[in-house]
Amino acid sequence: MKVAVLAGGVGGAKLAHGMANCLPAGALTIIVNTGDDFSHFGLTICPDLDTVCYTLAGIANPVSGWGLRDETFNALDHIQTLNGPTWFKIGDRDLGTHLERTRRLQAGEPLSRVTADFCQRWEVSPLVLPMSDDPVRTIVHTRDGRRLSFQEYFVREACQPAVARFELPGAADAAPAAGVLDALEQSDVIVIAPSNPWVSIDPILAVAGIRGIIERRKALAVSPIIGGQTVKGPAAKMYAELGIDPSALAVARHYQSLLWGFVFDNLDAELEPQIASLGIIPLIEQTLMRSDQDRVMLARKILQFSENRYLRRER
Amino acid sequence: MKVAVLAGGVGGAKLAHGMANCLPAGALTIIVNTGDDFSHFGLTICPDLDTVCYTLAGIANPVSGWGLRDETFNALDHIQTLNGPTWFKIGDRDLGTHLERTRRLQAGEPLSRVTADFCQRWEVSPLVLPMSDDPVRTIVHTRDGRRLSFQEYFVREACQPAVARFELPGAADAAPAAGVLDALEQSDVIVIAPSNPWVSIDPILAVAGIRGIIERRKALAVSPIIGGQTVKGPAAKMYAELGIDPSALAVARHYQSLLWGFVFDNLDAELEPQIASLGIIPLIEQTLMRSDQDRVMLARKILQFSENRYLRRER
Repeated sequence: MKVAVLAGGVGGAKLAHGMANCLPAGALTIIVNTGDDFSHFGLTICPDLDTVCYTLAGIANPVSGWGLRDETFNALDHIQTLNGPTWFKIGDRDLGTHLERTRRLQAGEPLSRVTADFCQRWEVSPLVLPMSDDPVRTIVHTRDGRRLSFQEYFVREACQPAVARFELPGAADAAPAAGVLDALEQSDVIVIAPSNPWVSIDPILAVAGIRGIIERRKALAVSPIIGGQTVKGPAAKMYAELGIDPSALAVARHYQSLLWGFVFDNLDAELEPQIASLGIIPLIEQTLMRSDQDRVMLARKILQFSENRYLRRER
Repeated sequence: MKVAVLAGGVGGAKLAHGMANCLPAGALTIIVNTGDDFSHFGLTICPDLDTVCYTLAGIANPVSGWGLRDETFNALDHIQTLNGPTWFKIGDRDLGTHLERTRRLQAGEPLSRVTADFCQRWEVSPLVLPMSDDPVRTIVHTRDGRRLSFQEYFVREACQPAVARFELPGAADAAPAAGVLDALEQSDVIVIAPSNPWVSIDPILAVAGIRGIIERRKALAVSPIIGGQTVKGPAAKMYAELGIDPSALAVARHYQSLLWGFVFDNLDAELEPQIASLGIIPLIEQTLMRSDQDRVMLARKILQFSENRYLRRER
């Protein structure tokens, strides 16, 4: 069974990691949001891509979920002595990733090729693809009238400003990276990971051609909202600020035209009839991934759920 | 007495450090070569400027002369795991300097202002000025027909290729940084440090207006060649490859139209008549700077020598 996963940062990376443990090499493709990429100190930084790769490589910081384990912060400490900006916590080894990626991008290589080479070095067996080799930059418009890059909103301002809307400059003109459309066409299951619908998944769906394929082939999404709250990140807060009651149901509605199935947490079991009434097959599971085992368990349930769908279809 | 020093990397930094210990705050300006600046991993790296600043701040690596003391190399180690270029040895804290400088340059600030702010943070009391805020890039043409940036020649190829000639693209159009011409006009003594004449000092002299002032006001140079050899770096090798016998005399001739005085080592005492015959006042000293005390001793001798010249003139 071939699987394609659309993923943002930590939540997407965890599910991707679980999937990688359930599937043979060559069966799994992770399509990663690059809308939160940004330029900092002249370097191109791809937070979601790095989180997915580091997690799959088993070198991610197990506490924060982002960055590398056993990391030092000597460059950042030195920047602090120079009164430079230290709100984005870059470790020294992590800097090595940004430096070498920036060098190769500036030499004209596409991000997808650089990512493939890094993954080979890190012995990451799933195919990890940036959604596009072209720059797409998620912009958060705040209710107080500011226009923030995603990392400014997310890290520097710690998601405090109320959001008014999102903008995805570049998305309309961005071509999917080589392999992205093929992976979506050829996969037996397309999974939308429990990532932020607004700022992790919507940017992927905005890249030319991606939404169209998923609307036709249909996907299964995992709710990032459990009991009205997000495990990590501002998804629930964003729904509330945009006037939508934050819930797994809101997520199911967000993706409605794309879905055949929807996985949400035991805590939200009472939403089952409403979700089913959207014409989506519900799967109620323990979706919180606290341990590596949780990741594998959730991945296995998702794959079984998908297999059953195919069995049903074939009957 | 106001002093301006023209300096390249390690040799220039050592003499500048000695001078800083002999002169009151406000009396010393160091004008530093930026021809060996280069872009690496998307960062603007200014090796000579950093060596001078780190040395004056007392934070330079005392063994190598360049880079920071108590340094780690975790970013570079990580770049190596990604098969990236590691020939230029950037430490983690040193990276912090390059990152913050690059950030500010890309935000539109001139290099001289960034340098001044860094020096304030590092409590460097002399005024350290890049020769220009405009890019000048020393190019080494090799005898085998290659065109190398200075750091490629100097670090990556460890000065092995025979040189054919040097090129200074950008120099003709580069304006001296604010304060450079004033420092040269207003100083009582202009000192050309024991740096490489071809690739450390000539780039400074090539910046519009600098050579002209020094030809008029005259400088004192310290020979970087002792007993036919350079203490560090390829100056002697370059003279030989360009068909000139490498010696303190060759250096005196190199600068001839700019000099009133020339300081060279005891080892080369027999060159005194030939140097005097160029119309230059010779000073034979111990010029090798192995310790901090050596730096101060040499600086003091140079200042005394210069004072005597003024006394002679006034008489």
